[in-house]
Amino acid sequence: MDAERPLDALNAARGKRVLVELKNKRRVSGVLKAFDIHINLVLEQAEERDENGEMARKLGDVFLRGDMIVLVSPSE
Amino acid sequence: MDAERPLDALNAARGKRVLVELKNKRRVSGVLKAFDIHINLVLEQAEERDENGEMARKLGDVFLRGDMIVLVSPSE
Amino acid sequence: MDAERPLDALNAARGKRVLVELKNKRRVSGVLKAFDIHINLVLEQAEERDENGEMARKLGDVFLRGDMIVLVSPSE
Amino acid sequence: MDAERPLDALNAARGKRVLVELKNKRRVSGVLKAFDIHINLVLEQAEERDENGEMARKLGDVFLRGDMIVLVSPSE
Amino acid sequence: MDAERPLDALNAARGKRVLVELKNKRRVSGVLKAFDIHINLVLEQAEERDENGEMARKLGDVFLRGDMIVLVSPSE
Amino acid sequence: MDAERPLDALNAARGKRVLVELKNKRRVSGVLKAFDIHINLVLEQAEERDENGEMARKLGDVFLRGDMIVLVSPSE
Amino acid sequence: MDAERPLDALNAARGKRVLVELKNKRRVSGVLKAFDIHINLVLEQAEERDENGEMARKLGDVFLRGDMIVLVSPSE
Repeated sequence: MDAERPLDALNAARGKRVLVELKNKRRVSGVLKAFDIHINLVLEQAEERDENGEMARKLGDVFLRGDMIVLVSPSE
Repeated sequence: MDAERPLDALNAARGKRVLVELKNKRRVSGVLKAFDIHINLVLEQAEERDENGEMARKLGDVFLRGDMIVLVSPSE
Repeated sequence: MDAERPLDALNAARGKRVLVELKNKRRVSGVLKAFDIHINLVLEQAEERDENGEMARKLGDVFLRGDMIVLVSPSE
Repeated sequence: MDAERPLDALNAARGKRVLVELKNKRRVSGVLKAFDIHINLVLEQAEERDENGEMARKLGDVFLRGDMIVLVSPSE
Repeated sequence: MDAERPLDALNAARGKRVLVELKNKRRVSGVLKAFDIHINLVLEQAEERDENGEMARKLGDVFLRGDMIVLVSPSE
Repeated sequence: MDAERPLDALNAARGKRVLVELKNKRRVSGVLKAFDIHINLVLEQAEERDENGEMARKLGDVFLRGDMIVLVSPSE
Repeated sequence: MDAERPLDALNAARGKRVLVELKNKRRVSGVLKAFDIHINLVLEQAEERDENGEMARKLGDVFLRGDMIVLVSPSE
């Protein structure tokens, strides 16, 4: 993530798989399709993950409201 | 969801059935009629769903306040 | 609720009985008199309802602060 | 409460006794002296009420911060 | 408190001892020195009070962040 | 703290040791280096304090996010 | 941290390792790459730390949403 501003880092992650942690402790992995300044996110091929990183539920396409986000991290 | 910005994804889901998860852990399924930048949503033919996806309560038409939304996902 | 924007749906419900669910899990039924962009609501002939939809308490006229609202649904 | 906008209803209640419910579950009864768009309220002759509507504590004049308000209802 | 707008009531209390209740259930008594539109307050000769109104801790001068405030009431 | 507006009080405390209480109940003592209108604070020589005022942890320089602040009080 | 305004302190920490504490009590250590006025942060070589400062989980690059931040402190 080569970034001058935090949103540049999200921009660099567009089209790549990211791990998103939510305030309700849930983790969602998906391909980052879109984001905005509120950190609203759209993920594709999204899956909910359990604590061990295993898939818990298929979500497919999903819109995540920005104020629920704790962190976004590119998967390697 | 073909989207440059997150709200484009909501726009693409207009008229389709979506699953909405709320901060109070409730899930509501309904046809997306309208939304705005606060993610206030109007759903038609809405039903509250339990954890297994079964209908728990008929809601009919419903206005959901945006700040209660966790995620919105098109049903396939 | 024929609506392009979510507030249009509230406008269409003006003068009709609606069911309002609050973040503190309470439910209030009343005739929708007024609303604004914060979803502040004024209800008339309002009653608090229990989980089974029975009247728990008469409220009469009531102003509800928008940030307490979870959902607003027209009663059929 | 004859109101086109929610704040009109508060304006109509100026000088009258209202019951205010707060997010911390407390209820305060008092004469509505002033309010603003944040729903900050000033009550006079205010009293804290218990669940049965009995006076629990005299407050006298009191400024209530708007973001604590759940509902405001005129006493009949 | 002779007030058209809620902040007028705070202005009238300037230089007088007020009781402030906070969202964390603490009560602070002090002489109101300054306030702003966020209800940020500066109190002098401030003391934390217990439920019975007894002094629990001397605070001296204190800046209170507005979003912590539940109510402000002049002491008589 | 000789202040017309609350931020004047913080300005007067610049360069002096202050006690900061956070919403997570933690207390941090440090020399106030900088603040802004959100009450974001920068403290130097900061220490976390326990309930009795004893040092619990050295923090050194620290940026505190404004929305975590309950109160700021100059140490005497 | 030589700072007139709090964000100057964050700017001075760019490119250095910082310890970040989150509202969910988690601690993340990483090299500060970017920040903005919301205190959204991008960290590189980030690691989640346990209470004793030991590494609990490798995070790599990570975007942290500003409203989750409690404090940011340069590691020495």
